[in-house]
Amino acid sequence: MDLNADMGEGFGSWSMGDDSALLEVVTSANVACGFHAGDPSIMRRVTAEAVERGVAIGAHVGYADKAGFGRRHVDVAPDVLRDEVLYQIGALDAFARIAGGQVRYVKPHGALYNTIGHHMEQATAVVTAVAEYDRTLPVLGLPGSAWLRLAAEAGLSVVHEAFADRAYTPSGTLVPRREAGSVLHDADEIATRCTAMATGRAIRDHSGGSFVVEAASICVHGDTPGAVEIARRVRGALEGAGVPVRPFTG
Amino acid sequence: MDLNADMGEGFGSWSMGDDSALLEVVTSANVACGFHAGDPSIMRRVTAEAVERGVAIGAHVGYADKAGFGRRHVDVAPDVLRDEVLYQIGALDAFARIAGGQVRYVKPHGALYNTIGHHMEQATAVVTAVAEYDRTLPVLGLPGSAWLRLAAEAGLSVVHEAFADRAYTPSGTLVPRREAGSVLHDADEIATRCTAMATGRAIRDHSGGSFVVEAASICVHGDTPGAVEIARRVRGALEGAGVPVRPFTG
Amino acid sequence: MDLNADMGEGFGSWSMGDDSALLEVVTSANVACGFHAGDPSIMRRVTAEAVERGVAIGAHVGYADKAGFGRRHVDVAPDVLRDEVLYQIGALDAFARIAGGQVRYVKPHGALYNTIGHHMEQATAVVTAVAEYDRTLPVLGLPGSAWLRLAAEAGLSVVHEAFADRAYTPSGTLVPRREAGSVLHDADEIATRCTAMATGRAIRDHSGGSFVVEAASICVHGDTPGAVEIARRVRGALEGAGVPVRPFTG
Amino acid sequence: MDLNADMGEGFGSWSMGDDSALLEVVTSANVACGFHAGDPSIMRRVTAEAVERGVAIGAHVGYADKAGFGRRHVDVAPDVLRDEVLYQIGALDAFARIAGGQVRYVKPHGALYNTIGHHMEQATAVVTAVAEYDRTLPVLGLPGSAWLRLAAEAGLSVVHEAFADRAYTPSGTLVPRREAGSVLHDADEIATRCTAMATGRAIRDHSGGSFVVEAASICVHGDTPGAVEIARRVRGALEGAGVPVRPFTG
Repeated sequence: MDLNADMGEGFGSWSMGDDSALLEVVTSANVACGFHAGDPSIMRRVTAEAVERGVAIGAHVGYADKAGFGRRHVDVAPDVLRDEVLYQIGALDAFARIAGGQVRYVKPHGALYNTIGHHMEQATAVVTAVAEYDRTLPVLGLPGSAWLRLAAEAGLSVVHEAFADRAYTPSGTLVPRREAGSVLHDADEIATRCTAMATGRAIRDHSGGSFVVEAASICVHGDTPGAVEIARRVRGALEGAGVPVRPFTG
Repeated sequence: MDLNADMGEGFGSWSMGDDSALLEVVTSANVACGFHAGDPSIMRRVTAEAVERGVAIGAHVGYADKAGFGRRHVDVAPDVLRDEVLYQIGALDAFARIAGGQVRYVKPHGALYNTIGHHMEQATAVVTAVAEYDRTLPVLGLPGSAWLRLAAEAGLSVVHEAFADRAYTPSGTLVPRREAGSVLHDADEIATRCTAMATGRAIRDHSGGSFVVEAASICVHGDTPGAVEIARRVRGALEGAGVPVRPFTG
Repeated sequence: MDLNADMGEGFGSWSMGDDSALLEVVTSANVACGFHAGDPSIMRRVTAEAVERGVAIGAHVGYADKAGFGRRHVDVAPDVLRDEVLYQIGALDAFARIAGGQVRYVKPHGALYNTIGHHMEQATAVVTAVAEYDRTLPVLGLPGSAWLRLAAEAGLSVVHEAFADRAYTPSGTLVPRREAGSVLHDADEIATRCTAMATGRAIRDHSGGSFVVEAASICVHGDTPGAVEIARRVRGALEGAGVPVRPFTG
Repeated sequence: MDLNADMGEGFGSWSMGDDSALLEVVTSANVACGFHAGDPSIMRRVTAEAVERGVAIGAHVGYADKAGFGRRHVDVAPDVLRDEVLYQIGALDAFARIAGGQVRYVKPHGALYNTIGHHMEQATAVVTAVAEYDRTLPVLGLPGSAWLRLAAEAGLSVVHEAFADRAYTPSGTLVPRREAGSVLHDADEIATRCTAMATGRAIRDHSGGSFVVEAASICVHGDTPGAVEIARRVRGALEGAGVPVRPFTG
């Protein structure tokens, strides 16, 4: 099982999360590319440290909106979005390569991630950008999203991810954040659930039923000290259960 | 002889110059990378058209300052500048590559160009970025500049450029823009001078003396319709004199 | 009748339209406030010239999105939008006041204008910002829009505007730009229509019927030389018909 | 004695310091205006809380450089700088006024503060902006700076500030940060020194001599929890020594 987390989300004098601590825990780093967060020097630092630790580098592409941290939908024209995604991947790859690695996958961020779950034109735009840059780059996303469906149709490798701390509906989608109980906070519960997901056992959905999550990667958070600690617990639980924790990129 | 010009300097709904007209005239395109000017969609358009026409693509890297168009010095820390330059080259290269080409050289823009003529730390930063990205990338600049001296010391290929419409001092430096007569406006005079420069003949300096400019590329402008016309005249004069006009990158 | 037009839409080295030419024609200037376009120096220049010519200054507030020129919807939180609008009005008012005038009305720009025609939360946000800044500031917009309805409910003065060159549906809304015939290009037709609108006579709608537009201001464009010429014709036609052309602000 | 501190220096999802904690300690708040830090919603929050607590609101104007946090010199043209400063004051004043207060003084930030200590053109630009906006607004700065000298010549009220935790040279200037011992860290020493400054007693300079600092305001920091605690100690020491702590604006 792979563990992925968002990283490199500071900007200039502003910091966000503890990238170094998180890089000790996860196996795939979703690195911000300077559009919704991140800047060139942060990108250098994070990619260098990721290569050093054998953590796979993913391009965490987002809307060009630092003021909104990429968390608000922008009705950008598909052609423009395609070019913005390509720009971000190219920029990040420069840092990955001088560190001795390369961009190994693409995962959209925030509002872009949500939008391309259903918005066909924007989803197509992101798929096109990845395919133009490198047809062998896998993309990471939610099973059932327009994004993964269109990526698969375009011949890209798609990788399913699960969320360590989010409640699921009976149909396997995430319970919206605004609903009560949508986010889990108990470290033990989260770790137990991740182990179940990693070993093919069913987990409980939001309405008390149970279902099996199929995912090659689990997304954990790292923007607070508590979040890093939970990520550590998840990794410990997986390893304790005999699940090898390594990048999905192999 | 190579002819180079700045290009892709629009931004969103704002345009600057006529890139398509200029790409019919020059052999090397200094393409803005989104920091002082340019945006992803403009970068795509210009690089695609350059590849189609056999025009060499150069990364026209600048300070991160769209409000100032990269024309004012920013006292940015050398490490940060290094990373900003690397970011810009990587982003542009993504567009060059999907168009079937690649970034073939680096030329700093505006205030950065001027600053690294003498500012050792910033010059070293830009040199380091180029060397890290690709040691075989040539760099374009003024003979005698710290930028080219340090680049040569770092093992990069350096290419000298001359300016089609700028007056020279007896020591071969440019007469500052604020002085009278620093910029030539007569198309015939400019074309004649460029032919002299391209054929090893002396040109007149600002104080009436004469000297020989050694350059592998001549920089022309394209930000006004008149400027494009002058560029066309320069190219015509060179070809009329039997000087092959082609990219210095070979 | 008042004539209003967008102005001050350059940014740094990039220009857009001919503000000075337009200020000779219109009576109300919708001045960009640095979020979707404009910058402090342009704001100073335009407001100074507007005061000199007796042209009323309006705050042309927009989304914080220069790359998109404020023409794409941003799903910004209402509280944030409210504060962004207030910021823009305050900044513009500083320039208006040192020129001897003041901001006399508020008109949202581009995608924000369109969005608040129907988006209650964002419309409320803009209304709140205006009311907080100055309850006596009138707001300009389309009859029937949520924006004007909510503004009226909040006690603001609302001013209806008509568009000189846009086709209308039978119900009095604008024909969407993507439909054929949605934008008029014939200067004579536009001028004649504006005169009809200004004198209470019916104009033809898109499907051949006729209806009376009630508006205290007509919006003209100025982003091309042709547009300025059309604006001049409109003013000439109004004056020829004995319609006084002056700011709606009195 | 007045205590001033920088505030409102977050941006979007990024935070910096604890504004609320600091507003309980200081009497004057230097509020970032969205150019080097801050955004409209932060400006609203900080100004509202400042008014509630009776803390004077100052416009902490800076270079338009969020990536550099306003800490690097930008060679911006004086006219442009003047307009940028005016824009910032106007925007902040909108928030101050709707909260029931107003901007009460101007203090430049970071690299701009340092530059206008000696750069006559940029200093004049900032002075002009303040004078244009409101001739009665006092300006805060270092005794002996070009900024205060030119402000006084322009008829503005100038207010001298001292730094709680910075070492002074025998001539009364600050010891540059890069030198050892330039910044004091001991809370007791800082508090004692501030009390001396507030009661007209001499403090020790960097080379062991002593001199009297004349200042109407002391600048404290708040960007770390430790810094807020030191500020609290300073205030406690002043009050313990019978020095009234209140805004210099009266």
